[in-house]
Amino acid sequence: MNDMTQTPEMLIAAMAARARKASHALSLASDAQKARGLELAAQALRDHGDAICRANAQDMDNAAERGLSPALLDRLKLDTARIEGTAAGVEQVARLPNPLGETISETTRPNGMVLQRVRVPLGVIGIIYESRPNVTADAAALCLRAGNAAILRGGSEAVESNRAIHAAMAEGIAAADLPVDAIQIVPTTDRAAVGAMLRASGLIDLIVPRGGKSLVARVQEEARVPVLAHLDGMNTSYVHGSADPQMARELILNAKMRRTGICGATETVLFDAAFPATKDVLAALIDAGCAVRGDEAIRALDPRVTPATDEDWDTEYLDAIVAAAQVNGLDEALDHIAAHSSHHTDAIVAEDAEAAERFLNAVDSAIVMWNASTQFADGGEFGLGAEIGISTGRLHARGPVALEGLTTYKWVVRGTGQTRP
Amino acid sequence: MNDMTQTPEMLIAAMAARARKASHALSLASDAQKARGLELAAQALRDHGDAICRANAQDMDNAAERGLSPALLDRLKLDTARIEGTAAGVEQVARLPNPLGETISETTRPNGMVLQRVRVPLGVIGIIYESRPNVTADAAALCLRAGNAAILRGGSEAVESNRAIHAAMAEGIAAADLPVDAIQIVPTTDRAAVGAMLRASGLIDLIVPRGGKSLVARVQEEARVPVLAHLDGMNTSYVHGSADPQMARELILNAKMRRTGICGATETVLFDAAFPATKDVLAALIDAGCAVRGDEAIRALDPRVTPATDEDWDTEYLDAIVAAAQVNGLDEALDHIAAHSSHHTDAIVAEDAEAAERFLNAVDSAIVMWNASTQFADGGEFGLGAEIGISTGRLHARGPVALEGLTTYKWVVRGTGQTRP
Repeated sequence: MNDMTQTPEMLIAAMAARARKASHALSLASDAQKARGLELAAQALRDHGDAICRANAQDMDNAAERGLSPALLDRLKLDTARIEGTAAGVEQVARLPNPLGETISETTRPNGMVLQRVRVPLGVIGIIYESRPNVTADAAALCLRAGNAAILRGGSEAVESNRAIHAAMAEGIAAADLPVDAIQIVPTTDRAAVGAMLRASGLIDLIVPRGGKSLVARVQEEARVPVLAHLDGMNTSYVHGSADPQMARELILNAKMRRTGICGATETVLFDAAFPATKDVLAALIDAGCAVRGDEAIRALDPRVTPATDEDWDTEYLDAIVAAAQVNGLDEALDHIAAHSSHHTDAIVAEDAEAAERFLNAVDSAIVMWNASTQFADGGEFGLGAEIGISTGRLHARGPVALEGLTTYKWVVRGTGQTRP
Repeated sequence: MNDMTQTPEMLIAAMAARARKASHALSLASDAQKARGLELAAQALRDHGDAICRANAQDMDNAAERGLSPALLDRLKLDTARIEGTAAGVEQVARLPNPLGETISETTRPNGMVLQRVRVPLGVIGIIYESRPNVTADAAALCLRAGNAAILRGGSEAVESNRAIHAAMAEGIAAADLPVDAIQIVPTTDRAAVGAMLRASGLIDLIVPRGGKSLVARVQEEARVPVLAHLDGMNTSYVHGSADPQMARELILNAKMRRTGICGATETVLFDAAFPATKDVLAALIDAGCAVRGDEAIRALDPRVTPATDEDWDTEYLDAIVAAAQVNGLDEALDHIAAHSSHHTDAIVAEDAEAAERFLNAVDSAIVMWNASTQFADGGEFGLGAEIGISTGRLHARGPVALEGLTTYKWVVRGTGQTRP
């Protein structure tokens, strides 16, 4: 067993070297070939559905023994319907427009040199994720379609499921004559392998963590490789004095309560003192089962509102709880958002277009919305087809990140013998 | 003296908080106001030229006492001509097209929501640089024009010059009613302040190191904040068998010898075995004063070529030295470049368009060139007006980075009350 003497660093370096070679081959492969590889991978997922279910049953048994919570067990669970959903997702990625080759800009210099910026793959992408085994297929498909090689490291509780899904994906891309090293799965559940990925500067070009806050926090703390990370969705909806009462009620109810556990859910509502129907919106929230924690002015409107503490204004509940405050005008709302927003998604409800445009301009968040539910903060809802995540960082890609976020560009210069004077 | 009890972390956090406020104000200021601020700053640099020269004389005296090398002293030195050059550079930045506000993409969703991606400032940018005091003005001007606040930390040997230049810049932007905190200079030469900047995640959005390899390496090693960094320019020019002999001689001579100390200089030349005039190109290089270190085939062509060691293929000489090897065909050249390039700039000299296009497609570098000198790898030469640096990273911005590289985007969503089903 050679592996016994191999350090995690050696393992990751060897995988990354194979991934680099594969990424070069992918960058030269046609788009049709990559799309074909994904179609075949989707088919392989269906063909091997039974084997994937058996592998998953092993993971489920182990997880139950280890006492995983019902919520985690549900995330881990695969069945024919979920495998079909995963396969359909891979096919959907295969049918997205080609993200590569686009000429982003072109100029001709006075000396006749022609300069283009052309969209190319990023290279080698590391995906670090937790219990959902479908990420093995989803993330690999997005990476591959954008011409990148992927190194996948899933949760230890999903190891058998991930291996079975990976084997099916590999079979599909091999059948399209694409390099199997384009999608690799870290073969050990040793946590040190994650550390080695995070420190693999120059070997891995980008790390995408997919999972809960503690995973993302560890990745951000330890990584020497650039990270596309998603932190909190501390999102605010601000109801301006000019807001239509009925629209405000429907939007706030949807933004908070449609699904409380997603990152686009509204966590704080600011009601302008000039908005006449705050009481109705509060009642609608409470009647829908939402706990409202309010400042003094809000509490005065409904006895069911409990007092908010300082902490509430910075809390991403991901639950049927909302913080609510009264503000005097747009500027006070902007100040509150600047102080408490996590720069994910913030919205204004207003009929006054001038106020709305000022809000859209002044709020410094990845997504700013006017008269729309913050729950739309999602790559699929944005028409991007599929997303690898939502970035709360400011560099490279912001908000929902799909295929384009997994590309970069290079400068292509064509001359006729020009020398620099 | 409150400062005696202030840690570097507290100092940087306080500066960053003021910078964040200033960046919000800047993001709302009109482009004309920012341009006007830079015009006035350029004028203030000229008006205070004498004071800047006196401050610089102090730095020069201290540096001479500390025994700085003549090369470093020359970098530090300011005179009326250099101050005029700096002022003109600031004016040039004022006259570049507005990098902000552009709508990068726009879509209307089936439910009627209109989505735009709009170019906005990055936020707060930290610049860490060495002895050239003109960076104080250049970098601040680029940051400000792109709507960002800058926190500047120059070399301790240039502290008086930097302060004087900063004071003039601040006077100019204040005269245009822009917040003076938009350009701040770290008031201490304590090296711990650099560490505090590098760890200021969430407070500083981007660090740009400007200086030698050891500075850039320290920044990359220590930074928790994203870094726009420029590593080696291990650039290769490949002379294909189809290359025009005269063009090849002129291009190689220029690419290596025009200025040997810039990052775009060619460091390795690959001669195809099918190229008939390798001997002439070698003679031209050697006659121009270049030391050639070659493999066996190259040494056989000219007795003045000395043997290359393995190390030579990975060395950025920044000097009148070149490594030269013979390769058999394009694939061998691509393999050599994949193994040794630092992914900065690589070029092919060829008349065969098919070979050239294969090279441009296959070489994974920030800049790839066909029949042009690698010495063109420069923001000014690319028509970008001015550059903050050349990025050898793959994320966010690649190659020469100018105003656009100092921006990001946000998603602006305009609805009419849409809720997510």
